[in-house]
Amino acid sequence: MQIKLNNPLDMHLHLRDGEMLETVGPLSADSFSGAIIMPNLLPPITDKASLLGYKQRINSAIGDRDFTLYMTLFFKPDYSRDFLLSIRDELTAIKLYPAGITTNSEGGLSGFDIDELRPILTTMSELNIPLCIHGETNGFVMDRESEFVPVYEKLAKNFPDLTIIMEHITTKASVDALDKYDNLYATITLHHLLITLDDVAGGMLQPHLFCKPIAKRYEDRDALQKVALEAHPKVMFGSDSAPHPQDSKECPGCAAGVFTAPIALQALAELFDKNDKLNNLQAFVNTNACRIYNIIPTEKTITLEKKPFVVPDKYGTVVPMFAGQELSWSIV
Amino acid sequence: MQIKLNNPLDMHLHLRDGEMLETVGPLSADSFSGAIIMPNLLPPITDKASLLGYKQRINSAIGDRDFTLYMTLFFKPDYSRDFLLSIRDELTAIKLYPAGITTNSEGGLSGFDIDELRPILTTMSELNIPLCIHGETNGFVMDRESEFVPVYEKLAKNFPDLTIIMEHITTKASVDALDKYDNLYATITLHHLLITLDDVAGGMLQPHLFCKPIAKRYEDRDALQKVALEAHPKVMFGSDSAPHPQDSKECPGCAAGVFTAPIALQALAELFDKNDKLNNLQAFVNTNACRIYNIIPTEKTITLEKKPFVVPDKYGTVVPMFAGQELSWSIV
Repeated sequence: MQIKLNNPLDMHLHLRDGEMLETVGPLSADSFSGAIIMPNLLPPITDKASLLGYKQRINSAIGDRDFTLYMTLFFKPDYSRDFLLSIRDELTAIKLYPAGITTNSEGGLSGFDIDELRPILTTMSELNIPLCIHGETNGFVMDRESEFVPVYEKLAKNFPDLTIIMEHITTKASVDALDKYDNLYATITLHHLLITLDDVAGGMLQPHLFCKPIAKRYEDRDALQKVALEAHPKVMFGSDSAPHPQDSKECPGCAAGVFTAPIALQALAELFDKNDKLNNLQAFVNTNACRIYNIIPTEKTITLEKKPFVVPDKYGTVVPMFAGQELSWSIV
Repeated sequence: MQIKLNNPLDMHLHLRDGEMLETVGPLSADSFSGAIIMPNLLPPITDKASLLGYKQRINSAIGDRDFTLYMTLFFKPDYSRDFLLSIRDELTAIKLYPAGITTNSEGGLSGFDIDELRPILTTMSELNIPLCIHGETNGFVMDRESEFVPVYEKLAKNFPDLTIIMEHITTKASVDALDKYDNLYATITLHHLLITLDDVAGGMLQPHLFCKPIAKRYEDRDALQKVALEAHPKVMFGSDSAPHPQDSKECPGCAAGVFTAPIALQALAELFDKNDKLNNLQAFVNTNACRIYNIIPTEKTITLEKKPFVVPDKYGTVVPMFAGQELSWSIV
């Protein structure tokens, strides 16, 4: 059995820089037609020169592969209208990190004062620049996302013309918020569709499944699966594929992030197939995203076949999800 | 400032076997006057010969240090009265593991049928053999202990003459159960007095703080601290110090267990001192245990002084809690 995916998109991707980019850039470009490129480098992408420079380095890493780069800026509340106008053509979205919440987010936002945010968010609304948010508070690790939902709702309500993407949602609370505001959307990762905290820490501890936001409860995973498998029109696939070298994962003080880019479509096909929902995979990995972001990616067809694929133990220095395990679908 | 602890006891200790026993046995014997020795070797301790053999190997490892070994059997529902009578003098308690719940517990108990358990638990009641229980269900990792509390209560109610120890409790639910039944007691570890899941997985992932039961929420830790700091008469210190070689902790599939034996008294002194409760430490590490278990340990005085102690990076191949960090109390 085969399926063809037209222009699959990864709406939340970390490509890093330097050597790591050389390793992981081509892998994403082999599987996907394009991706939203996260800006949390060190230092983060906050001006046109660094954005264009990063885009150029990515293009150099992926060589002649067809792969559309949807570039983002790291949110700063003081971006001017003139600046945003000057960069509008190069920019797909702006990514907001609460301060210190994940890898390289130390320069992020503290507090969500509506009056303070009004100028920038009004400008973004007028220029149709979506706001992507890593929505977590500084609270207890299992509560951080659900505690943030009121912030999502406050922003959605106060800025009804702003497209707000709840990134890598992990809870039923976020799923429930989706339908309350017309301008609230979400990306969902592969790993949060598949695992709970039990997979991370319920048996032996699995550092390669450790990520932020951390995987939650079964009822959360079930809520995510439900909207993904039905390809709810407001959800999109975003891998949040986040490579770290093996020695940063298997150590005291292990970094957060699951590396899924090269195995994501295969594992999604397996999940959608198992649930008899393969017909909805195209919408989850492409159609919804094109409509929400109003984008037209590079033409590319990825053919998946139901035949075993043994996931490599490593890609370069990075251990992927399902390392050494067999998935039932392959890219052909 | 100095304090003297008379006969401090560790009422829940894993000494392992072989090389690891050679490393960790002397460390416990240097700090403590005695300990309850857990029986979950491979194979577990289930007969007199293996109990006496293990006791002899421990005594050989600790050399001429004064250290009382309170030996335990691995619970099996079919131990006969004759067998228990024959081993009574060598035995301090029997440890019950639900099947598969932690390190080397594959042969543990499935189901808690009162009628099935009546013969053995009646005999244990009559022979005054306490039952130590690792109380977790096979549920979601954050719920396993609180889901087990009804089992504790069922056993306490049906066997009112049986001394039941809720081992290494981690939740407010278990603390709340303490006062409901006269025959229900608890051990509390150092690490569960100090950490929550945020310390394990809220920032970078910390494999050396990963244990079973997993550290829980702030309200749980606060409830544990409250009864420990007041030296509630039904709680005792039990380190659950559980050494694993560094390469079994910093790897994919990291083993559960925190190694605290050689730093536990220093860290407890720091905690009790900070909370102005040093006067209660003697009861928490000795008096309560002697009364609950009706034991008189080897005479030994451990003197602690408020002066900095830098915890070693490793003891043998084992990374302890607080590795490389400074505690404010030392053993002199």
